[in-house]
Amino acid sequence: MSILVVGSVALDSVETPFGKADDVLGGSAVYFSASASHQTPVQLVGVVGDDFPVEKLEALSARGVDLAGLEHASGPSFRWRGRYRHDLNSAETLETRLGVFSHFRPKIPDQFKSAEYVFLGNIDPRLQLDVLQQVAKPKLVACDTMNFWIESRREDLLALLEHVHIITVNDAEARQLTECANLVKAARWILERGPHTVIIKKGEHGAFMFTSDSIFFAPAYPLESVFDPTGAGDSFAGGFIGYLARTGNTSKASLRRAVVHGSAMGSFVVEGFSVTRLLEISRADIDARVADFHELVSFDKTLGG
Amino acid sequence: MSILVVGSVALDSVETPFGKADDVLGGSAVYFSASASHQTPVQLVGVVGDDFPVEKLEALSARGVDLAGLEHASGPSFRWRGRYRHDLNSAETLETRLGVFSHFRPKIPDQFKSAEYVFLGNIDPRLQLDVLQQVAKPKLVACDTMNFWIESRREDLLALLEHVHIITVNDAEARQLTECANLVKAARWILERGPHTVIIKKGEHGAFMFTSDSIFFAPAYPLESVFDPTGAGDSFAGGFIGYLARTGNTSKASLRRAVVHGSAMGSFVVEGFSVTRLLEISRADIDARVADFHELVSFDKTLGG
Repeated sequence: MSILVVGSVALDSVETPFGKADDVLGGSAVYFSASASHQTPVQLVGVVGDDFPVEKLEALSARGVDLAGLEHASGPSFRWRGRYRHDLNSAETLETRLGVFSHFRPKIPDQFKSAEYVFLGNIDPRLQLDVLQQVAKPKLVACDTMNFWIESRREDLLALLEHVHIITVNDAEARQLTECANLVKAARWILERGPHTVIIKKGEHGAFMFTSDSIFFAPAYPLESVFDPTGAGDSFAGGFIGYLARTGNTSKASLRRAVVHGSAMGSFVVEGFSVTRLLEISRADIDARVADFHELVSFDKTLGG
Repeated sequence: MSILVVGSVALDSVETPFGKADDVLGGSAVYFSASASHQTPVQLVGVVGDDFPVEKLEALSARGVDLAGLEHASGPSFRWRGRYRHDLNSAETLETRLGVFSHFRPKIPDQFKSAEYVFLGNIDPRLQLDVLQQVAKPKLVACDTMNFWIESRREDLLALLEHVHIITVNDAEARQLTECANLVKAARWILERGPHTVIIKKGEHGAFMFTSDSIFFAPAYPLESVFDPTGAGDSFAGGFIGYLARTGNTSKASLRRAVVHGSAMGSFVVEGFSVTRLLEISRADIDARVADFHELVSFDKTLGG
C-alpha cells in the first residue's frame, strides 16, 4: 500500500562533534521517504529549486519512492545549516534559507490522490489542510508540526487536528500546543481535538503513543555512538506509517509494533549523516533491531528464571 | 532476607508548585527503608540529632524497619530545604544543614553484621567502605553516590566500586564519574571497575540496567500528576534491592523484575510529600503497577492482533 508524503526536500549542512557534511540530502519528506521505503512504496510531493542536485534523489527512486510529485521551481532550494554540540541533544540552527519552499503550494498528482496512507510533514498547517482536500479518502492520515506553526498558525493547526488520525510531535511541541507541562495531560488534550492516536517523541528518551484508553512507550535504542541526530523524527514517522501501510493493519497490537519500527528507523538514521544509513540497511537489519528493542524492555511479571 | 541500609535520616522542607511541607521525614535511608519494607525486613543504620521527632519513625518500625542501628547524637539533625519549579525536573537546593550527619561514623550493630543484602546510601565513600569492613559476607552489595563525592572523593569511590556488585547513579553522575557523555560507554567504564550491574536512573525518563552482556530499560511510569520528586531514586533502590532480597533470586530475569519494582516504587513516592504514599500502598498496589509497566512496554515482535 503506497504512502503519500508531503514535506520539505532540502540541502542540509551539518556540524557535529564527529565531522561535518555540506549540502547533503535533507528535509522531512526525504527522511520520511528513505525510512518508509523499507516497508512500502512512497509517493513524494515537495519542491526543489533549479540548483538542486537531483541526481542525489536517484537513490530514493531506486528504493521505490515515486518523485512524480516533486516540483522543480525556479530559484534556490531550501537550505538548512545546523550544529550539534557535545551532548547531541538539540540542534542549533545556524541558518535557514527557505528559497522556493517559501512559495510551496503542494499539487498532488492525479495518480497520488487515491493514496490510502498520508503523512503530512512539517509544513504550514494551511497547506496540510489543502493537501487533504486534494486526496480522495485516505484510510489513515498522520501529521507532524513544529513550534513555529504552533505559534503562528494555531487556529489552522487546531482545524487540521480535526482531520488527522495520528499526530507526531516532540515533547516540547506537545507542551507548547497544549499548555500542559504533563505529557499525559497534553496527550489527552490533543486526543480530545481529533486524532485517535498521539505520538510524543522525546528524542534520546524514547517515544510515547497515547490513545483514548492506552499508553505505550518505546525507548530510544541505546546506541554507543550517535553521529548526527538530524532527521530522527521524520525517520521515526517513516518507519511507523510505513509499517502500518505495509501490513494494512491498524489494530492496537500493530500500532505498537509500528512505534517500535519507527524507533528502529530513528536509531539507524542517527548513525550517519543525512539518509546514508537508511540507504544501507536491509529489512533483516530492521527486523534484528526490532528484536533488540524487544529484548531491551522485556520482563516477566511473575517469578521464574 | 533482611537488607542492611546505611544512609541519611533527615528532615526535609520542600516546596513544589502544588504545595509545601516542612520538616517531613527524608533522607536516603528513610526513603530506601519505606520502599524496601514492602518486600522484606530492613535494618537501618543512620544518625539523628537530639531535635529529631523520633515518633515520626514509628511508621517505619511498624513496617518492619529495625531502628537498632539509628544513632542518637547530640546536636541538630540533618536538614534539607529545596524547591521544585514548574517542570519538576530538578531540585533547587535552598539550604543544606548537615548537623550531626557531618560527624556520622556508621556503627553496624552485631545483629546486623550478617546481613546478606546491603545498600550503601549516598554518603562519603570512605564510610561506605568502612561499612563493608564491618559486615560479614553479604551476598549482594549495592551503592549509590552523588556529584559531591565524585568530585571530592574520586579515588575512594573507585576503591569502593571494586567491592560492590551493583551501583545506582543518575545519568549526570554517570557522565561525571566516567567522563563519557554516552551512557552505554559510561556503563561499560563502570562495569570494568567492579560492579557486575550498573543502574543508570534518568528520573522522568526511566532507568537503564547494564550488565556485561545485556541492557534492560524501564520507563518511568507516565503519571498525570507528579507531586514531589524527592526520594524517587532511593525509593527506586529500595524496590529494586527489596525485590531481590525477598525472592533471593539474582538471575537476569529477576534483576529485570527488580528494576521494574524499583520503577514502581519511584512512581508511587512522587505522588505525595515525603514517604506518605509509600506508607499508604499495599503489595497489591505494587503488583498492579508492575502489571501496568508490563502493559506499557509490551509488544509482539511478529504479526498478529
